[in-house]
Amino acid sequence: MSTDGGQDLGVTKSKEHETGEWYAEVVQKAELASYGPDRMGGFIVTRPRGYALWERLQSELDGWFKQTGVDNAYFPLFVPESFLEREKDVVEGFNPEVAWVTHGGEEELDERLAVRPTSESIIAPYIAQWVRSHRDLPMRLNQWCSVVRWEATETTPFFRTKEFLWQEGHTAHATDAGAWAETLTRLDQYAKLYEDVLAMPALRGAKPEHDKFPGAKTTTTVETLMPDGKSVQAATSHHLGTSFGEAFDITYTDEDEDERTCHTTSWGVSWRALGALIMTHSDDQGLVVPPALAPEQVVIVPIWRGENRDAVLDYAGEIAADLREAGLRVELDDRDERNPGFKFNEWELKGVPLRLEVGPQEVEAGTATAVHRPDGESHEIDVDGVAAAVRDALDTVHETLYDAAAETLSENVREADSRAEILGTVGQHGGYVATPWCGSEACEAPIKEEIAAEIVAVPLDAPTEADGPGERVTAAHDESDTCALCDDPAETTAYFARTY
Amino acid sequence: MSTDGGQDLGVTKSKEHETGEWYAEVVQKAELASYGPDRMGGFIVTRPRGYALWERLQSELDGWFKQTGVDNAYFPLFVPESFLEREKDVVEGFNPEVAWVTHGGEEELDERLAVRPTSESIIAPYIAQWVRSHRDLPMRLNQWCSVVRWEATETTPFFRTKEFLWQEGHTAHATDAGAWAETLTRLDQYAKLYEDVLAMPALRGAKPEHDKFPGAKTTTTVETLMPDGKSVQAATSHHLGTSFGEAFDITYTDEDEDERTCHTTSWGVSWRALGALIMTHSDDQGLVVPPALAPEQVVIVPIWRGENRDAVLDYAGEIAADLREAGLRVELDDRDERNPGFKFNEWELKGVPLRLEVGPQEVEAGTATAVHRPDGESHEIDVDGVAAAVRDALDTVHETLYDAAAETLSENVREADSRAEILGTVGQHGGYVATPWCGSEACEAPIKEEIAAEIVAVPLDAPTEADGPGERVTAAHDESDTCALCDDPAETTAYFARTY
Repeated sequence: MSTDGGQDLGVTKSKEHETGEWYAEVVQKAELASYGPDRMGGFIVTRPRGYALWERLQSELDGWFKQTGVDNAYFPLFVPESFLEREKDVVEGFNPEVAWVTHGGEEELDERLAVRPTSESIIAPYIAQWVRSHRDLPMRLNQWCSVVRWEATETTPFFRTKEFLWQEGHTAHATDAGAWAETLTRLDQYAKLYEDVLAMPALRGAKPEHDKFPGAKTTTTVETLMPDGKSVQAATSHHLGTSFGEAFDITYTDEDEDERTCHTTSWGVSWRALGALIMTHSDDQGLVVPPALAPEQVVIVPIWRGENRDAVLDYAGEIAADLREAGLRVELDDRDERNPGFKFNEWELKGVPLRLEVGPQEVEAGTATAVHRPDGESHEIDVDGVAAAVRDALDTVHETLYDAAAETLSENVREADSRAEILGTVGQHGGYVATPWCGSEACEAPIKEEIAAEIVAVPLDAPTEADGPGERVTAAHDESDTCALCDDPAETTAYFARTY
Repeated sequence: MSTDGGQDLGVTKSKEHETGEWYAEVVQKAELASYGPDRMGGFIVTRPRGYALWERLQSELDGWFKQTGVDNAYFPLFVPESFLEREKDVVEGFNPEVAWVTHGGEEELDERLAVRPTSESIIAPYIAQWVRSHRDLPMRLNQWCSVVRWEATETTPFFRTKEFLWQEGHTAHATDAGAWAETLTRLDQYAKLYEDVLAMPALRGAKPEHDKFPGAKTTTTVETLMPDGKSVQAATSHHLGTSFGEAFDITYTDEDEDERTCHTTSWGVSWRALGALIMTHSDDQGLVVPPALAPEQVVIVPIWRGENRDAVLDYAGEIAADLREAGLRVELDDRDERNPGFKFNEWELKGVPLRLEVGPQEVEAGTATAVHRPDGESHEIDVDGVAAAVRDALDTVHETLYDAAAETLSENVREADSRAEILGTVGQHGGYVATPWCGSEACEAPIKEEIAAEIVAVPLDAPTEADGPGERVTAAHDESDTCALCDDPAETTAYFARTY
């Protein structure tokens, strides 16, 4: 197979040995994103092939939100400084680094405006206005937008950028139980997004007390494990209790005409999901994306010599038409100026899940050779019923991706009972280490200091009634255990990991 | 029919006599938008019922864009000041009032960042990077985003706001003809959006030389006429020639390996489309929206007394199920605590295009009474084949809305041959006045000064090959005419109107 133009077009770094450089190369060479202008460190330009991934993720999740009572809305891009101050007063520890707008046109503003780092403080006063009676509850709002946090030092596209795309959901409920059920509904939808759409196993748990969203009663999290052994906080869903309700006067009158405070939640997932996706599945040939997200699910590469050209192209065209008819996203690469080897490399780099090769032999036999992107697995398929066969192959690609990631995850949850064991296990293997823990932040500190690992999750207190997708962070130890880091009794199981 | 709660819930202002106040009331009472916080004049909050209109508009237009080769992308929210300066250097007259970010966190930035007022100057350098050869052309990018212009003094939701939602398309082409065809393709799609989705006739034309987008060779426009006789620039599509290509080094190598400059376009429509929609169709009972955009296309109101309740509700439920099955958006208003009259008022206020009333008589007869929102037209429909009958009724509602607006438009294009006639006709009737014009801005000035009317369109030089939707601004006068405002020969026909 020819590899003309291979080196400079293809990925040159090794995923295993130069993970960071490899990631940056995949993102750029698969044309997902470019870096922002020189003067704008921390910003990226999302190119069509990257944005298409986001659009499909958005479309799936947005559909589920709407089926479960969520309405989209749009709130202003800016938040007055006094609103953020109000949030700071009620929510200890809230002090975001933001981009400040100080001038409109030539004029200096009376009050600075923050480019929204998140929208709690501008959405809450409106929910307070709109909710009057118990009949208005639950109220569930969501917006798809970009937010800015002036934090990123180095830029890692999708993982670490000053501006990022996300959705933020904000809901109000009559009861604590209602808000908690909402929190778990969204957590389950995020886990489902990872499992069914991104082909990534998701670990569901809660953040420890000291790492909750400021003001939250419980912060729940979906964690995913990257191949380098680090954990990514892949989505979060917060049960805010009545803290925002009290601070922003979000009240309702109940059936007895008594005034009560609402229980609220917020939840979000950002384009970091795309970063985790790229990091998990891609390889030294380039991008790998699961069929549900791929801009092209199938690429057909016709292979001809001389006089076969027209017959092969006609045949390939018919297959493409059949697949499109069946609703599949198909690219027929009939470029004359490129040879098949070049095309194979290019579409592998771009992550198309399935390649169909058709040459004179296939025309003769009424078949096509299907090649799976993740593992190179290849087999003949019949052109009669080609759409069904391709769907099967795409399902297999999804499973292959999921299974590989699930295997990595299950191999990388280990137990440890002492400080030395935690340090050694995380240090040597990465991944998660489950350990009995007293609940004190002070016991996390030395681990953080020595090997930059932290507690990424603890078990969720209350299981969902019908337990959702994703594996649950579970208690690995008895209640009688003592904390692995001090002599106090263990209160829960802590999952330590290094993080992104 | 009872009208309990009518006055304070319903619209109190008259569309004819207090248009501005009426508009503000409709927007708020139909729950489309709220005003931003006190400290943020010019900003609005788009509530779920308003955002749902935008989402449907977006979904329709985005589908057409994709069918015609456009890829979505996402560029940074900020534009460095030096980039805007670069645009100012090349594009005379470009001097937008912008919101300036001067600080990131605690730190003052080396260079101020503008919150994007439009993205030409940040997108063009990337297109320059990505376009190498003629094979990369045409390149068509679009983004859906918000932009900020620090201009609005008074806030009029959707019409006049400092931040607004829009899409901006940016394309590069090998030839001038390619760019011009692109310009017209998008103009046609905008006209189609107004006609087929918003049920509004659209007038297609070009802006006069002195009112083009800075740097454009031709600015084309879709104009729509509001009931108060003012014209709204409802969407624009710019043929930018090579001015941006030259300024930003957007070049390509042609088939002979010669380097050439690209011809570019840009085009956009904003949520002002929603403003025009509300203004055009709504009435003193509240919002009216065409079926293609309506969050609920049909509301079913069951009417019962005492023992009929269950039978009527069951019957209504079956109709709702049939309609949903057929893909229609249906609300079954089965609230016990509200009487039918209250419900009628509420859903009229919210603009649901079609109401189905079902009571014991309808149950008996196997029918439902359909009432059209725009004109109160009512008729019985059979529950056998109810979905088809409802679809027909919705088509009729669309036509009713379109026809009314088209009639207003056709009655309000008048001709004038002298300054006095222009002043008198626009002054008395509003609408458009077509007049022979020499092409000089100086001749527009006195009209602008005296009655605040300006030239909103002139005929497009070259007709599209297959002329698209929308009526074309046409030449109403011979070439032998002289300008209505001076004695020079007329070069074209000018359409004067007052504007939003």
